[in-house]
Amino acid sequence: MVNEHRSGPVRSTAAREAILDATARLFHNQGYDRLTIQGIAKEAGVGKQTIYRWWPSRGALIGECLAEGRLIPVDFVVPDTGDLAADVETWLRSVLSILEAPEGGALLRSLVAAATEDAGVGAHLGESLGVEKYLTERIRGGIRDGQLPTDAPVEQLGRAILGAIIVESLGREHHDSESIVHLTRFLFSPRS
Amino acid sequence: MVNEHRSGPVRSTAAREAILDATARLFHNQGYDRLTIQGIAKEAGVGKQTIYRWWPSRGALIGECLAEGRLIPVDFVVPDTGDLAADVETWLRSVLSILEAPEGGALLRSLVAAATEDAGVGAHLGESLGVEKYLTERIRGGIRDGQLPTDAPVEQLGRAILGAIIVESLGREHHDSESIVHLTRFLFSPRS
Repeated sequence: MVNEHRSGPVRSTAAREAILDATARLFHNQGYDRLTIQGIAKEAGVGKQTIYRWWPSRGALIGECLAEGRLIPVDFVVPDTGDLAADVETWLRSVLSILEAPEGGALLRSLVAAATEDAGVGAHLGESLGVEKYLTERIRGGIRDGQLPTDAPVEQLGRAILGAIIVESLGREHHDSESIVHLTRFLFSPRS
Repeated sequence: MVNEHRSGPVRSTAAREAILDATARLFHNQGYDRLTIQGIAKEAGVGKQTIYRWWPSRGALIGECLAEGRLIPVDFVVPDTGDLAADVETWLRSVLSILEAPEGGALLRSLVAAATEDAGVGAHLGESLGVEKYLTERIRGGIRDGQLPTDAPVEQLGRAILGAIIVESLGREHHDSESIVHLTRFLFSPRS
């Protein structure tokens, strides 16, 4: 329980921590649909107004949790063995392994739901899966190594793969990771 | 106002129409976030139980509205001029023209939000944009015409493009249709 009557930076830091912790915990346990500012305030032991002073919406809270690695704490690195298609496949399989577990699929769908309400969540989602930092960087390496044409649209390829993962998670009844692997092989394998 | 006390197929058809009409209208006006079964029941002039007798959730209602063309009434055909890249670009520009308007972007984001709660919405979303019926069919034609390798993963290419459109709509602040056009040109233009 955070003491609402203390003031200054100490209280702010403690309350901020408690609020983000409570948000991440409730999000994991209940999903986005049932997440409310009131529920977060109760869980964190603060007043609703304390939350609204710093965050305009539950979507903004999820965006901040995501940016701080509180929701997807894994670092999805893309290796560089010199074989672009194989390296992307390694990354893809580690990301897709999240979706294999029911709670992982639900987490991703909840993040997509949050992204529809808050643009910051959308921006951080790709970041959390390593799309900007690792995947597009690795694709750039593939261009340098002559494995992809120099005019390959690097960012868009990364976003299309992220998009395919999202579409996959939305159609949860027909879960088929291999088909995305097939896609990336087609995109990144050397053409004869 | 539908008379709740009449019975038989006539009442069912009228009530069903009223409920789906009300769902589509409220969804357009308020978005998914504020859509409730209670609100739909009031708008349709029926009891909540009448709705729950036929649909388990608001997501299921949105899925049915989408499948019946009540939310995206346009038929997104992909032409066949013999130039695969140009044909896909024509289709893509007509789909992206929805996103250009603020209410179109909001509609798509609301549909994605609904898809996170109901798998049927996800399935019908690609269908409503012509992904399965027209886009993948056209890509298959491109393989027949020798414009794509025979091992091109047709469905996955369609879903990656749908995914890129979804990711685009989630990052609404940096709206840039041209980059998706660039992606499809890269995917479908003849390689030298």
